[in-house]
Amino acid sequence: MSAGVTLGYSYDDGAQPPVVGDNATIRQGTIIYDDVTIGDRFTTGHFALVREHTEIGDDVLIGTNSVVDGHTTIGSNVSLQTGTYVPSRTTIGNNVFIGPHAVMTNDPVPLRQEVDLEGPRLNDHVSVGANATVLPGVSIGEQSFVAAGAVVTEDVPEQTLAVGVPARHEPLPVALDGGNRFE
Amino acid sequence: MSAGVTLGYSYDDGAQPPVVGDNATIRQGTIIYDDVTIGDRFTTGHFALVREHTEIGDDVLIGTNSVVDGHTTIGSNVSLQTGTYVPSRTTIGNNVFIGPHAVMTNDPVPLRQEVDLEGPRLNDHVSVGANATVLPGVSIGEQSFVAAGAVVTEDVPEQTLAVGVPARHEPLPVALDGGNRFE
Amino acid sequence: MSAGVTLGYSYDDGAQPPVVGDNATIRQGTIIYDDVTIGDRFTTGHFALVREHTEIGDDVLIGTNSVVDGHTTIGSNVSLQTGTYVPSRTTIGNNVFIGPHAVMTNDPVPLRQEVDLEGPRLNDHVSVGANATVLPGVSIGEQSFVAAGAVVTEDVPEQTLAVGVPARHEPLPVALDGGNRFE
Repeated sequence: MSAGVTLGYSYDDGAQPPVVGDNATIRQGTIIYDDVTIGDRFTTGHFALVREHTEIGDDVLIGTNSVVDGHTTIGSNVSLQTGTYVPSRTTIGNNVFIGPHAVMTNDPVPLRQEVDLEGPRLNDHVSVGANATVLPGVSIGEQSFVAAGAVVTEDVPEQTLAVGVPARHEPLPVALDGGNRFE
Repeated sequence: MSAGVTLGYSYDDGAQPPVVGDNATIRQGTIIYDDVTIGDRFTTGHFALVREHTEIGDDVLIGTNSVVDGHTTIGSNVSLQTGTYVPSRTTIGNNVFIGPHAVMTNDPVPLRQEVDLEGPRLNDHVSVGANATVLPGVSIGEQSFVAAGAVVTEDVPEQTLAVGVPARHEPLPVALDGGNRFE
Repeated sequence: MSAGVTLGYSYDDGAQPPVVGDNATIRQGTIIYDDVTIGDRFTTGHFALVREHTEIGDDVLIGTNSVVDGHTTIGSNVSLQTGTYVPSRTTIGNNVFIGPHAVMTNDPVPLRQEVDLEGPRLNDHVSVGANATVLPGVSIGEQSFVAAGAVVTEDVPEQTLAVGVPARHEPLPVALDGGNRFE
């Protein structure tokens, strides 16, 4: 663990220190809140932020400037690249890739109506391209791929390419077929 | 105020320390420059940046990694979510919401011509969706709503939905009608 | 150089301290890795990150929250505005402007196939607009201009405007003609 890491940012008097598994590499500037549970071989870039009530599996990378806003579950073998945003109430499966600056959201009508916040659900083996935006409550099916810059407004079936603004759904090209295998 | 906050970043010998009202919550990593005036109940996330000659009203939130580049006016009851960018010479009214990673701009012809920089004007009760981009000098009318991922290239009339790339203008759906009321 | 700057972040025992030319202004929160070479009059915002094996010319600005991920060459008279992302294996010429939150990428098939990473090539006098996304390996010709919010999926010829999602190619309007001259 580097100097300049905050492991256990206190947000509430009754909160418990975070639990981080073996062989973590947490880089300078990163802040992990209390009430966070993380598995083994956890890695972060710089200035990553993980807020309270987040559960994270093994072999997860949270890149520089990425924010996980809490009350969120992340599986194992997950890579959040630089500058991603994961709001509260998001569910991320196993073997998921979120490209640089991709943004998940959890409020469909900000400040207009009072609704329960609900982030997206990224199922196993999903990849989300750079700077894509995923609307609240959207579910992305297993092995599906969101193209860079896409704005995903509707549920994406499994093994599907979502591309464009708003995203249309196409069959996966051969080069993207077969789920996430490499790291 | 957390440890690790910089309140009064010096950029000029003649500058004055920032003034912040009562009951502020400023989180670790945030930097507020000199020559900034902020009202009561100011809240920030982590690593927020507010540069010189910014005037901010009461009950304003500036989220994690958000940047307000100075020479800017922000009203009261304003929420800048995680990772927003507000360049210099921007005007933001009251009861405004700016979603995560939304980007305002102030130079229409960067490095091609010498022009006066002018950011957007967001009038009262405007909401801007996640990862939207608003072009320089664009005015967004009262109660209008910019959809997630939209690129707003022209002035938006009041009570209008701006959606797509480039953004087209549509009547507000019922779910988004009536201005910003909740927080 | 401000307090709170990390000049020479160690990532490998055999690495060499970074070399920075004369008259640098490096602001609080910035991290420069070992094995980085930078010319004169280098300027950064806050929380900028420059990783290993990056070569940077003279008169370069790296804005607040911008990340240069290493193994990258950047020319002289280059401006990276707030929150840009430059992945490894990117090549940036002279007199280049990258607008706020613009994202370069280097992996066309993340986690689906094993490929050599290759970032974009931005030739001399290129400007990239705010929140644009440039796909891996794309070359942008001299004096070309990428509009705000564009997603650039194919090589852009010289003196061309790339606009939309996916970006189509148009002649440069008069206001954007003639390369980058101002700063």
